[in-house]
Amino acid sequence: MSVRIAIMGATGAVGTELLDLLAERNFPVGELRLLASKRSAGSTLEFKGEKITVQELTHDSFAGIDLVLASAGGSISAEFAPSAVKAGAVVVDNTSKFRMTQGVPLVVPEVNPEAIKTHKGIIANPNCSTIIMLLPLFPLHKKIGVKRVNATTYQAASGAGARAMEELRDESVAVARGEAFERTVIPFPYAFNLFPHNAPYNDGSEKNAKLHAPVGYCEEEWKMVAETAKITGDANLKVNATCVRVPVLRAHSEALNIEFDRPTTVEEIYAVLREAEGVEILEDPASNRWPMPIDASGKDPVLVGRVRQDLSRDNTFDIWVVGDQIRKGAALNAIQIAEKLFLKA
Amino acid sequence: MSVRIAIMGATGAVGTELLDLLAERNFPVGELRLLASKRSAGSTLEFKGEKITVQELTHDSFAGIDLVLASAGGSISAEFAPSAVKAGAVVVDNTSKFRMTQGVPLVVPEVNPEAIKTHKGIIANPNCSTIIMLLPLFPLHKKIGVKRVNATTYQAASGAGARAMEELRDESVAVARGEAFERTVIPFPYAFNLFPHNAPYNDGSEKNAKLHAPVGYCEEEWKMVAETAKITGDANLKVNATCVRVPVLRAHSEALNIEFDRPTTVEEIYAVLREAEGVEILEDPASNRWPMPIDASGKDPVLVGRVRQDLSRDNTFDIWVVGDQIRKGAALNAIQIAEKLFLKA
Repeated sequence: MSVRIAIMGATGAVGTELLDLLAERNFPVGELRLLASKRSAGSTLEFKGEKITVQELTHDSFAGIDLVLASAGGSISAEFAPSAVKAGAVVVDNTSKFRMTQGVPLVVPEVNPEAIKTHKGIIANPNCSTIIMLLPLFPLHKKIGVKRVNATTYQAASGAGARAMEELRDESVAVARGEAFERTVIPFPYAFNLFPHNAPYNDGSEKNAKLHAPVGYCEEEWKMVAETAKITGDANLKVNATCVRVPVLRAHSEALNIEFDRPTTVEEIYAVLREAEGVEILEDPASNRWPMPIDASGKDPVLVGRVRQDLSRDNTFDIWVVGDQIRKGAALNAIQIAEKLFLKA
Repeated sequence: MSVRIAIMGATGAVGTELLDLLAERNFPVGELRLLASKRSAGSTLEFKGEKITVQELTHDSFAGIDLVLASAGGSISAEFAPSAVKAGAVVVDNTSKFRMTQGVPLVVPEVNPEAIKTHKGIIANPNCSTIIMLLPLFPLHKKIGVKRVNATTYQAASGAGARAMEELRDESVAVARGEAFERTVIPFPYAFNLFPHNAPYNDGSEKNAKLHAPVGYCEEEWKMVAETAKITGDANLKVNATCVRVPVLRAHSEALNIEFDRPTTVEEIYAVLREAEGVEILEDPASNRWPMPIDASGKDPVLVGRVRQDLSRDNTFDIWVVGDQIRKGAALNAIQIAEKLFLKA
């Protein structure tokens, strides 16, 4: 069998990673249609050594397509995903648009693969920080029982797209040399600096009444709370998140402070993590060496390490987690969903 | 009156900041003796427009000196502070050497100024992350009562010294241009990367039995726990810390998750912070604008903002804190101690 695929947002950071992964994983691609804005139409991208011309995305782009991988932004998905579904395709959507829509499964294949079957045309790919957190957290929850996690993130430029990564590089060179630099992508000085996440923040004013975040939170933080509840289907697993953008290129790090339902040990936690799907323990304690963003960049597994007991509260432990924001945080998770959909072997 | 001052480690990041602060705050400097290693001896530093030649630090460097400001590293303080005390000087020590020594006061002037009087020649300046955390935390503890804080840090290069800052700049330019770079200061790739703090880590092996950290912790993390207990004198205030080095130049950020003894509100917390000595609220919620390292760099106050309720646990709130590591985290705190010692007005 082979699958006819359209990629929406093919020229972006996630789009190009989707191409790499389809090739790398030998996904049985029947046809590959690359869709992007009018501006990018006519450019070419390579897939398995072949040049493919990018076409302009329209409502008629989906005829004969089995699978749409969408990563062109929420408003684009909102406009075009229904047309793709009408044309008979299944849409795996990387944007936040349909994640919390009732009836749309929100899937991390290692956590809730069974939800894929319930789709009615659209399957949502969760937020990157949520996926990266859940890969180690969910197995711990299943085996030991998690009462609450306090997650603090160190998020990379890639979450804001390929242009943000480029801007961070350029701004860093300028600042290091004492030169002026004009930013056009990231709203705050970013070189050698950091800031609480720039996702829309609910300050309690009327104009923010429709944001998907309670007062005092930004949407990125609330995604980690709300999406975790939807994916795990467990309202007892409580999440608090503080999201911060740091001057790193493409992997997110997270400090997880986890309170368990019962007494456990560092050894038991490591034993669960060793068996966790998609998770790799990377550490050399004797050298104070733990997962770093550059270790995870371009790699599939979510890296974990530095498990230790929190001596300030019973049954509580700290874990350090790093995952590639573009791979497992976006493109890889989408491809894994597609594999479960089409390659049932 | 005037004070005859010697600075140990005058040429380092903290040393030069001490000179700036003595001038800026019009400290009544009678004599200024700049002491450094043999290597730096003979070089000159400027103070109020005057060139001062750096002298080699020896055990005889302290004759006629009233105050020694020490920031040349723990082993240097261990060797020379006793000679300074014997010569009749008071040593305000920026290193970790004497911080936990019984009888040596460990002082944040906004928190425990009364401890200064108990000194027997040496007063210790706390760890930078601890000082920055305590400035907002202690007033909250006094007014509302803090049960536990989970602190996650985003620590700058300056904590590893002036050469680490320079290396971060140079490595960033090299990486951005795809050029090779050889690090000599920081043990891990640092440009566009981050890592759990490189302070000595206790892996439980015999060679680490004497580290000032329990198994699973690095010393930086344990300083935040142990020094907070000593400074506040309150064993009921529980601290958990996860320390991370991020590619930022000179201000530390901290995400504090604070559980209070009783119900409180965002408004009450802001009211306490508004009155907190050395603390400044810097935020514009409507623009999702919060304290950033570049806001704090070179500034005295510890900046706070983004107070919000943690919906995952009763009586718990998140606060975002940023402070200049070299100023309040080191040099400014030392100068403030000196002011309390000598300028009692």
